Amino acid sequence: MPNISNRGASMPPSPIRKLVPYAEAAKKRGTKVFHLNIGQPDIETPAAILDAVRNTKMNVLAYSHSAGHESYRRKLVEYYGRNDIQVTTEQIIVTCGGSEAIMFAIMSCMDEGDEIIIPEPFYANYNGYAVGSDVKIVPIPSGIETGFALPPVQDFEKAITPRTKAIMICNPNNPTGYLYSLAELEVIRDICIRHNLFLLSDEAYREFCYDGNKHISALSLPGLEQHAILLDTISKRYSACGARIGAFVTKNKTVLDTAMKFAQARLSPPSFGQILGEAAVDLPANYFDAIHEEYTARRDLLVSRLQQMPGVTCPLPGGAFYAIAELPVDSAENFCKWLLESFEYQGSTVMMAPASGFYATPGRGVREVRLAYVLNLDDINNAMDCLEHALVAYEAQKTKTKVVTQL
Amino acid sequence: MPNISNRGASMPPSPIRKLVPYAEAAKKRGTKVFHLNIGQPDIETPAAILDAVRNTKMNVLAYSHSAGHESYRRKLVEYYGRNDIQVTTEQIIVTCGGSEAIMFAIMSCMDEGDEIIIPEPFYANYNGYAVGSDVKIVPIPSGIETGFALPPVQDFEKAITPRTKAIMICNPNNPTGYLYSLAELEVIRDICIRHNLFLLSDEAYREFCYDGNKHISALSLPGLEQHAILLDTISKRYSACGARIGAFVTKNKTVLDTAMKFAQARLSPPSFGQILGEAAVDLPANYFDAIHEEYTARRDLLVSRLQQMPGVTCPLPGGAFYAIAELPVDSAENFCKWLLESFEYQGSTVMMAPASGFYATPGRGVREVRLAYVLNLDDINNAMDCLEHALVAYEAQKTKTKVVTQL
Repeated sequence: MPNISNRGASMPPSPIRKLVPYAEAAKKRGTKVFHLNIGQPDIETPAAILDAVRNTKMNVLAYSHSAGHESYRRKLVEYYGRNDIQVTTEQIIVTCGGSEAIMFAIMSCMDEGDEIIIPEPFYANYNGYAVGSDVKIVPIPSGIETGFALPPVQDFEKAITPRTKAIMICNPNNPTGYLYSLAELEVIRDICIRHNLFLLSDEAYREFCYDGNKHISALSLPGLEQHAILLDTISKRYSACGARIGAFVTKNKTVLDTAMKFAQARLSPPSFGQILGEAAVDLPANYFDAIHEEYTARRDLLVSRLQQMPGVTCPLPGGAFYAIAELPVDSAENFCKWLLESFEYQGSTVMMAPASGFYATPGRGVREVRLAYVLNLDDINNAMDCLEHALVAYEAQKTKTKVVTQL
Repeated sequence: MPNISNRGASMPPSPIRKLVPYAEAAKKRGTKVFHLNIGQPDIETPAAILDAVRNTKMNVLAYSHSAGHESYRRKLVEYYGRNDIQVTTEQIIVTCGGSEAIMFAIMSCMDEGDEIIIPEPFYANYNGYAVGSDVKIVPIPSGIETGFALPPVQDFEKAITPRTKAIMICNPNNPTGYLYSLAELEVIRDICIRHNLFLLSDEAYREFCYDGNKHISALSLPGLEQHAILLDTISKRYSACGARIGAFVTKNKTVLDTAMKFAQARLSPPSFGQILGEAAVDLPANYFDAIHEEYTARRDLLVSRLQQMPGVTCPLPGGAFYAIAELPVDSAENFCKWLLESFEYQGSTVMMAPASGFYATPGRGVREVRLAYVLNLDDINNAMDCLEHALVAYEAQKTKTKVVTQL
């Protein structure tokens, strides 16, 4: 039997999905599982955009243009314009989810052995694309003590080598929920210009900014036009994860032309998803108001409940729909497993993502979990009741075990 | 401005799409263009499967399982079973088009610098995946003189080095239309077993076999269970290119588990396309009969017209919907350009794909074109009238130029 590739062997499994078998077993036992572990929004996909697909008239479901339907790209120009991002249809490649946009960016900008600096913790799937393309992720630490703010300039400077080709950010951030300020983005911009680096900016959660703060795109930073690549997706924006529609956007024509060759090799993005995405740009202007209100209420409830639990640290995130919490346990991974294997409260338990999988540096984040607030307020309350009791029970059984050990 | 990657720079543009600007210019001048250049079927997508998407009931367009909806994989098991391919739902990963299946296979089986042997001419987009993953394609020649039959065993043996990890075939073949016989597949199987190589088998055109010949899948060759990876797509099968639904199928559990990690990194395949694909398995058993008949008639007409043209060689292909023809011209690429730039007959011209783009060896196939018979019989006839007159006119203007030069 021939051997698999080294890159295949070294590809890390998804930390978000690693605990799935334990959750399945819990459900089989009849335990209700509150899923705070995945970023699958529960908000309904707007009926109007599903209807656009349902009402499709076509005889042949043909390949679209490799860059996506021109009519959809025209609509995207309109959408981006409303978000202070001035681009043309020629600066957009519609992709199969944000994932493909990430891949096109890495492939177009980086060779085997090149380095990309990413503040950690970061979205774990970036690892997959780095391993697949033999690019090295160089993490620089952001931490719970600063609420996951941008690491200081000198940490970037120290990490830069002759092989550094790019910096990557996710803003608002998955997994931390941190929203970068204009001042922070200008720091990143200056580093990119000073060291001639690309800036890959994952803005999947653009619409999810709270407390009156505005999202600022890497693509609207003056001076960064030839450096910035915007990686986008409609998955979270319209609760349309299954559409698999994203976008690769840049004003750098050489990069765009290069990405287009990769786009041509995979022929075209999904047609139905493009129809849905095109309709979404015409949703009423107030579409996000109710969603905003809902997510703000959820965030506030989740974080305040967590902050009230003894020994738990949870900074208030400014965006996305994630929070990272440090728990009074030695290993968040063991605790998460235990929650699914050995615990229930009123017939329920909680599933969270151990945060260590979002750090590249071994040992960091071992006491942290990522929580996605994609449940309604009642369920968040119930899940927090569960977690609160679980922390007490976990501590008690530890002490008991210790006592037993000491006897 | 930072530099793009070397792999991006060395990525070849699609030979199929290279002439597109010339075709657009011709259309702007009012010339009708018969498209024999691309494999976009004109056959209508079955209304029943489009209706399955139109009738979708869902509130949230969620991520599917990374391997695809289980209900769809169950249907695929049924479909493959009908085609003498015995697999389980756990041996299938639903992909975003056949393209992604190719990528998963290369990533899972090959590292940077590893070699994959492919008989040339081959589907040009394989280059894209090889360049993107730093894998080296080693072409071995098949030629028009044998009708593009499998190259002799010794050609494979000569091409094998310590870095060879796999052989790749496309069966029936794009661009040649050649359908491999059982004897030929057994030759390939024996080489793979002898040298411990993977066999990547692109079977996008499984249903398109003519003259009563049956398609044999690499996955049904006894002894090859741990070597064979089937790369599939519904694009051609149901005229559903825009669905972007394919499949990666293997009985090798280690390879499947490895590919699953890449599948998890990109989250999930498109949901609407999966709904369409699932419905397609329930199309009536005679669905392919009319399509078969139509393509057979088209192939026979196209090839007989080509064979009647002086100086043209065109072997009868046994499958897919392509034919390769050698033309009495020095450069098929120049001729194809000239057809779009300087020629028309009764207001029309013909667009074909120069075949040199399907060969990896420089200089091979320079007088050849690939023709896709995705037009109705009338249009094929008109296109062949066009081509016939064009060959005469091209020869005449060459002679005239020569005369002028000699004066």
